[in-house]
Amino acid sequence: MGGGGGKDGGGGMAAQAGRLGVVASVAFNLAALAFYLRRRYFGGDDAAAARKKAEAEVPPSSGKPPVTKDSIINLDHGDPMMYEAFWRGGAGERATIVIPGWQTMSYFSDVGSLCWFLEPGLEREVRRLHRLVGNAVADGYHVLVGTGSTQLFQAALYALSPPGPSAPMNVVSPAPYYSSYPAVTDFLKSGLYRWAGDAKMFDGDTYVELVCSPSNPDGGIREAVLKSGDGVAVHDLAYYWPQYTPITSAAAHDIMLFTVSKCTGHAGTRLGWALVKDRAVAQKMSKFIELNTIGVSKDSQLRAAKILKAITDGYDRAAGAAAAGDDDDDSSGRLFHFARRKMVSRWAKLRAAVAASGIFTLPDELPGHCTFANETVSAYPPFAWLRCGKEGVDDLEGYLRERKIISRGGGKFGADGRVVRISMLDTDEAFAIFVDRLAAMN
Amino acid sequence: MGGGGGKDGGGGMAAQAGRLGVVASVAFNLAALAFYLRRRYFGGDDAAAARKKAEAEVPPSSGKPPVTKDSIINLDHGDPMMYEAFWRGGAGERATIVIPGWQTMSYFSDVGSLCWFLEPGLEREVRRLHRLVGNAVADGYHVLVGTGSTQLFQAALYALSPPGPSAPMNVVSPAPYYSSYPAVTDFLKSGLYRWAGDAKMFDGDTYVELVCSPSNPDGGIREAVLKSGDGVAVHDLAYYWPQYTPITSAAAHDIMLFTVSKCTGHAGTRLGWALVKDRAVAQKMSKFIELNTIGVSKDSQLRAAKILKAITDGYDRAAGAAAAGDDDDDSSGRLFHFARRKMVSRWAKLRAAVAASGIFTLPDELPGHCTFANETVSAYPPFAWLRCGKEGVDDLEGYLRERKIISRGGGKFGADGRVVRISMLDTDEAFAIFVDRLAAMN
Repeated sequence: MGGGGGKDGGGGMAAQAGRLGVVASVAFNLAALAFYLRRRYFGGDDAAAARKKAEAEVPPSSGKPPVTKDSIINLDHGDPMMYEAFWRGGAGERATIVIPGWQTMSYFSDVGSLCWFLEPGLEREVRRLHRLVGNAVADGYHVLVGTGSTQLFQAALYALSPPGPSAPMNVVSPAPYYSSYPAVTDFLKSGLYRWAGDAKMFDGDTYVELVCSPSNPDGGIREAVLKSGDGVAVHDLAYYWPQYTPITSAAAHDIMLFTVSKCTGHAGTRLGWALVKDRAVAQKMSKFIELNTIGVSKDSQLRAAKILKAITDGYDRAAGAAAAGDDDDDSSGRLFHFARRKMVSRWAKLRAAVAASGIFTLPDELPGHCTFANETVSAYPPFAWLRCGKEGVDDLEGYLRERKIISRGGGKFGADGRVVRISMLDTDEAFAIFVDRLAAMN
Repeated sequence: MGGGGGKDGGGGMAAQAGRLGVVASVAFNLAALAFYLRRRYFGGDDAAAARKKAEAEVPPSSGKPPVTKDSIINLDHGDPMMYEAFWRGGAGERATIVIPGWQTMSYFSDVGSLCWFLEPGLEREVRRLHRLVGNAVADGYHVLVGTGSTQLFQAALYALSPPGPSAPMNVVSPAPYYSSYPAVTDFLKSGLYRWAGDAKMFDGDTYVELVCSPSNPDGGIREAVLKSGDGVAVHDLAYYWPQYTPITSAAAHDIMLFTVSKCTGHAGTRLGWALVKDRAVAQKMSKFIELNTIGVSKDSQLRAAKILKAITDGYDRAAGAAAAGDDDDDSSGRLFHFARRKMVSRWAKLRAAVAASGIFTLPDELPGHCTFANETVSAYPPFAWLRCGKEGVDDLEGYLRERKIISRGGGKFGADGRVVRISMLDTDEAFAIFVDRLAAMN
């Protein structure tokens, strides 16, 4: 219009009209511009939204303090801090959760369902993730949620123990077994079940066998060793994920336990799930969780659902990009690719350090065809089962402690003192200092 | 500038320059306007921020389905849905929490502390809330966190039971006692402790007495009835909050249990805390939670901290406004005022319905001076302990069930069948239908 005002070479009515129009137009445009600038630079909706978000974020606890060259390095627990870098990236943004003050106040998630405290959104994402990874059959199974898989393990013991005044059920697992199994089984001196030790030494007929595969502590692939009598097996599949081991088939056992701690790295969320075939067993396991903690935190369930969704969505996006021919190897949104790369490089460093030292040995690498990666890959367990051959070192845990490395001694796993379990999932900094110190021992 | 272009009456260089300037200016302004409009209406930062927030919110589960005039009304559990209206208001906005994907991944909150899985921010807000309300002494006490107070109750039994192979510790509580105490004490047939029934009937020397005050189910104020021998008391103060009972003094017992469920209404968050005097007992209680669930969900802890902060901040703001002379009775930010108003009106409706019916009785109102409200107020318990005097009604729970009201029968509390416990904390809709039905019974 201003241009039109210029066209007739000035003067006359048209030009006047043009100029008036220009005045009006410019005035309006300047007002709009000023309004836009105020909003943009002096705090409009978006600045306010950012402020609100900042207020709503709660400063997290320090967790473990950062390490230095001279620190004691604590690799006793499998604290999965290795994963933080992934969740600080683009995927983490998509896993952010907002919980309004009024949400999930009820005890109940779905009054009608067998597991009345299970958030339907979490069940959906659990089934979706298993479909993606192919590590377990979820169709035809009941999904239960627990405060970590530790609670679900106790729920399974409760559900599988005979009612009435019979002798306690024997709980066994082939040595080396997860060090928590005996402690958690016996700490309340239950009359329903009792720890009965190494499954390979057991010859009774009534028992629950705990099958941890891949095995904590040694990473081995396990099957139930006891098949006799009225025995039942509980399969702890916390580590049956593609970053740790080839996914050779979809597991389909009666009771299978999983946890976000070792799948996504969110140990602090205390969230596990079970896939249970038998309805009556699933009901008794739910009953245990009702009596023990009246259900499971809904905040944790909503967050876990968001996290699992971010993982599966990441692979869907990558598949979409590949289909569109846009096939770069960007793994920023692919959790299992990120974690496997970390495990490969950490195990290479550890084996190099062990070779440099000369006094240690590790289990051999176990290769297999992974249906998820669709290639033959090695296992890279979340724990190193480290043995020392040095003369006079009968207490390897103590030997390492003197060298400021905290590990968990073989005795706690039903093994000897010349072997320890060491977490492979801590921060890059802690792991680097650990391998340096190990390489220098001889 | 367009105006300037007009000043010289058209023609000449000035006018030309003016017109060119106008063209440039208008072009620039239009571009800015277009840019602003695109951002404003076709998704700029603020629209994107809103979208992100929407994506980050997870649709909550239905909880319990809404009720209709003919519904079965379930008042068996103390599902605290009454509080949702408060958290949907202004205070709720301030209690919203955002948890980024990378936050609180570690098992550990504070490696050095006695309760290594307790978020320091939660401990801070717990102590701050007790200072505000004055219902318990927190200074000089260890703060422990649990997956609801139910887990802390079991932790206390574990911590107080003698080690070694002695007979199980006797667990008692004066009838009527909370129906979960016997079930939770005995469900694992622990060799450490066993339910021994009504404290008033107990005459041994070694025991743990559970003191629930105000009492679930009957709202009475309780003190330990057993003082003899080596007995220890655990004080369950879940209901010792000003909306339910006058705060007559700051409790200072050896072990005191609290939960957000009945304080703020967030039952689904499964978050409780304990104030414990003795360090060794606090350590053993922490050990129980470590063995049972390897700590407590950090997401729940961060959320609970945010919620408790919103409550205390609300009272600080109100105090500030009052000091500034701006003294309206707006309780939109004051949780205990909101909840007390609800309880007062619900109890008035219930007593009117009981009077209209003529076949029921309720405990008498217990007035007292509340140091928090700084006035004499009545108790308005979270449960109604409803007794029926009608000829032939020996199973009141069954009698009410036939009338589509689910309650919890006296037998489960160590009382007779002519009395039931009814939750006073459900939705307004469910409560209204309940009192209407009750008034019509005769």
